[in-house]
Amino acid sequence: MTPVSPPSGPFKTRRRVEFRDTDAAGIVHFSAFFFWMESAEHELLREVGVRVVDRGADGVEASWPRVSASCDYTAAIRFGDEIDIAVGVEQIGRSSVTYGFRFEHDGVPVARGRVVAVRCLMHPGRRPEAVPIPDDIVGRLAVYRSES
Amino acid sequence: MTPVSPPSGPFKTRRRVEFRDTDAAGIVHFSAFFFWMESAEHELLREVGVRVVDRGADGVEASWPRVSASCDYTAAIRFGDEIDIAVGVEQIGRSSVTYGFRFEHDGVPVARGRVVAVRCLMHPGRRPEAVPIPDDIVGRLAVYRSES
Amino acid sequence: MTPVSPPSGPFKTRRRVEFRDTDAAGIVHFSAFFFWMESAEHELLREVGVRVVDRGADGVEASWPRVSASCDYTAAIRFGDEIDIAVGVEQIGRSSVTYGFRFEHDGVPVARGRVVAVRCLMHPGRRPEAVPIPDDIVGRLAVYRSES
Amino acid sequence: MTPVSPPSGPFKTRRRVEFRDTDAAGIVHFSAFFFWMESAEHELLREVGVRVVDRGADGVEASWPRVSASCDYTAAIRFGDEIDIAVGVEQIGRSSVTYGFRFEHDGVPVARGRVVAVRCLMHPGRRPEAVPIPDDIVGRLAVYRSES
Repeated sequence: MTPVSPPSGPFKTRRRVEFRDTDAAGIVHFSAFFFWMESAEHELLREVGVRVVDRGADGVEASWPRVSASCDYTAAIRFGDEIDIAVGVEQIGRSSVTYGFRFEHDGVPVARGRVVAVRCLMHPGRRPEAVPIPDDIVGRLAVYRSES
Repeated sequence: MTPVSPPSGPFKTRRRVEFRDTDAAGIVHFSAFFFWMESAEHELLREVGVRVVDRGADGVEASWPRVSASCDYTAAIRFGDEIDIAVGVEQIGRSSVTYGFRFEHDGVPVARGRVVAVRCLMHPGRRPEAVPIPDDIVGRLAVYRSES
Repeated sequence: MTPVSPPSGPFKTRRRVEFRDTDAAGIVHFSAFFFWMESAEHELLREVGVRVVDRGADGVEASWPRVSASCDYTAAIRFGDEIDIAVGVEQIGRSSVTYGFRFEHDGVPVARGRVVAVRCLMHPGRRPEAVPIPDDIVGRLAVYRSES
Repeated sequence: MTPVSPPSGPFKTRRRVEFRDTDAAGIVHFSAFFFWMESAEHELLREVGVRVVDRGADGVEASWPRVSASCDYTAAIRFGDEIDIAVGVEQIGRSSVTYGFRFEHDGVPVARGRVVAVRCLMHPGRRPEAVPIPDDIVGRLAVYRSES
């Protein structure tokens, strides 16, 4: 297993609300948080050196389809707002990773989310096949291990 | 209160997976189900005669921001697949409505979701203000009342 | 070449503006028309029996990436509006098809668009390879041949 | 008119392709470039101190709906690619601004786009009303004036 630094708390990133993320109610559409969770997860993976899509020697890609996603919203945010996102790895199973997300705007919590992703081989035209998460990746994910 | 027909089970609709709903893993992106839930909810509202966005005499719009949304995925679906969606009203609170969703493809369950929407006045530039759901709307929603 | 019926004018379809298609300006986001063009094109292809994504015997998929897309907007539309879409095949080249689109709401023109799609083999991880459009497909597309 | 610095060539920004921007053909969906154009335009506006959405003393918002948008694609890009975007102000009319966009990946041109946006008052529930672009804004936009 690759030696990794000790847990350093959640991975943090920031992004600005784009116009595409808004809706006719004048606020951010609830779906945007799911896109942001996915992108923050991908940033975390890049940070620890895990490829999001990993093409094996046989040409088959390994990726991380979701089996569960949820979000609770506590405040509305708007176009142009800057959003602070904290992502922690809450749990690592044989094939699955549970990520927890906290969203803040100007220090005020606006949403909390959770996603369970499963390591899968993506055979073209067939159903995703869950596979064990390689030890090396488990070690790398542990860097951002956090309580739920 | 408007007299309504007795509960008739969930509201049902069908849609086809569009290319915009897919991702580079070759399957439907998990976010698509949240869009479909919202649109199915809106179809249900139209069916029972409730306006999704309701501009009051004072020009202020009443709408239904979400406070919670979740989805569990059990099978991958693909571009072009036809999806059957069943929506039931699981709970009606003072300001909130909980909707439950079941998604099937060719009779096989592919996902289950839940959304909690809150009746709010959308004052431009201010935070949404939760308000009681009018009795008339409560009565109309009851048509699709269902167990969770 | 498959015998086809004589040109019958543009293919017509209708859809309702969904909430996901709106933005914080209170109107439909300009991007939505591009999604609608793509979906209308796919409906046309299904109507004439052409597979949008066609997996060959060698497992390589043929598809239709765009090389050009444009839209001119003449009126704003809103959530819930029903949109009439007419798609015509304006031109068929060796590898490319040019589609023209007209969008109306309540009989009023709201936008016109044009898309050029190219028949390509999508080798995983490599650049799309343009290939001649099979004669059978040329014949089928001719059903909706129209002036620009 | 606010004094502004002399033209400095196009405004430049960079972003990474997110998973939401891809499709089942394994490449970036053509629609993503339109979202990126809009966000790059907004970054340019922020850079020169122009509010994208500007609420007047009367509570009416001024914004920039598009009347035209187009994009030509010369190469496919993929999830995770970093994209360099250059935006120039090609033309400023009484109410309209024409922006030109060039997209590159690793120094290779991948797309060119153009957008015409119109300064409008967005009266709730009524059609957008085109208004002259204030002189101050014309001056600020001139910073990124460029040839088409």
